[in-house]
Amino acid sequence: MSDLLSEKTPIRARHIRPGEGQAVEMKTGQLLQIQTLQGKQVADFVAFTQGDTDEFLSTSVTRATNSSIVPRPGMTLYSNRRQPMFEIVEDTVGRHDMLYACCDPVRYEMLGAPGHASCRVALTEALTGYGIDYDRIPPPINWFMNVAILQRGELEIREPLAEKDDYVVLRALKDVIAAVSACPQDLVPTNGSNPTDLAVRVYRDEPLPSPPEKEDGQASAERAGAAAAPVVAINRTARPARLRDTAEATVYRVE
Amino acid sequence: MSDLLSEKTPIRARHIRPGEGQAVEMKTGQLLQIQTLQGKQVADFVAFTQGDTDEFLSTSVTRATNSSIVPRPGMTLYSNRRQPMFEIVEDTVGRHDMLYACCDPVRYEMLGAPGHASCRVALTEALTGYGIDYDRIPPPINWFMNVAILQRGELEIREPLAEKDDYVVLRALKDVIAAVSACPQDLVPTNGSNPTDLAVRVYRDEPLPSPPEKEDGQASAERAGAAAAPVVAINRTARPARLRDTAEATVYRVE
Repeated sequence: MSDLLSEKTPIRARHIRPGEGQAVEMKTGQLLQIQTLQGKQVADFVAFTQGDTDEFLSTSVTRATNSSIVPRPGMTLYSNRRQPMFEIVEDTVGRHDMLYACCDPVRYEMLGAPGHASCRVALTEALTGYGIDYDRIPPPINWFMNVAILQRGELEIREPLAEKDDYVVLRALKDVIAAVSACPQDLVPTNGSNPTDLAVRVYRDEPLPSPPEKEDGQASAERAGAAAAPVVAINRTARPARLRDTAEATVYRVE
Repeated sequence: MSDLLSEKTPIRARHIRPGEGQAVEMKTGQLLQIQTLQGKQVADFVAFTQGDTDEFLSTSVTRATNSSIVPRPGMTLYSNRRQPMFEIVEDTVGRHDMLYACCDPVRYEMLGAPGHASCRVALTEALTGYGIDYDRIPPPINWFMNVAILQRGELEIREPLAEKDDYVVLRALKDVIAAVSACPQDLVPTNGSNPTDLAVRVYRDEPLPSPPEKEDGQASAERAGAAAAPVVAINRTARPARLRDTAEATVYRVE
């Protein structure tokens, strides 16, 4: 359970099964929590400005403005107009992807699985009511996706480091439509070869309890370790160490 | 001079000064050459399908489909619909960027230089006649841009490895509108702190001479060395070796 959110009640909550997508509206200052419910599950995430969907979350502007390919707590996520859209408030994992496109029907055709569910289609369906079609789904942030970069720039998809109940929390810096899909990829290790469910919750912009500090040494150390884990893989055979085996948090009830 | 193109006459040629952009139309099979004219100059590159500009070159799909962040000869560049748009035919440098957004007016405001020319505006102006506005400029491929990735995923902009007359050649795999800007960034090392001119040429889809092999050992070795240069920087102080000091090719006359 999130330190910041543990005493609060969400104003919106969604349970997302693999291959499904959900869109939620958020006002400036509201918090979005994206959480794994069983374990190693990737959440493809896109967002648009309410009332002006030509502005959307841009991974390329976010990478460029932060000089980083790795989302980290405190980082601002930017739009295609280089305007702040979100701040990353909490992150229990420290390993996410801002490089990969959504999986899509052509990707699955290439993998010999035509007709397979995909994030691109799931997000399109979730955003249909906002007039956003397939071609306008931008490159996503893939929360919990674990991509190693090898020395010549090769990308290698590995099992997520996320375990059951891991999560990220984002604060909206403008009024947005956020959409999340639970990646249905079961042919490569994207989701630990076993796609599972996600929870998405929106919380009001109310005074929050201060994040715990000294008394939460173990969790803080784990988080710092995760945030510092190398993204770059020097040795093809070396795998990043598992950061922690489990999280004991209670599953939050969702609608 | 390009081995493949040395005996051919371009059907379109453009000279691009820093802060300017140019769009050229290409039919399937035609070749596009993007060349530095003085030296360490980045070329921001975007492309759209003729007659259906909702389809455009996607760096995120290109990275995902190739499992690589580094453009290399033989690589296919894909659209947002995961359809082939270009093949990389030649590359005399081997170091380019597919991570950074175009520089834009907000970027220069952040750098204390409001009103500075930018690639985003230059590409928008070049594409105005095709109904493509500022918000629809996709993440570019930044030819000749040299970005090192440090171990925690930090990005570091370095001087381009490209020297005078270095180039890339792309073959169009569908009918496209390609647009190139000469990056005017002079506040960070993107263009070796000295933006200079580019040439862009389109060649017909005619039978091409075979690429030289054994008899061009020196150049081939240089190219192989460039293609193999690590993208990932392990040591902040280690800089990649200069690949070659000069190229003796004649400057091609452009319109």
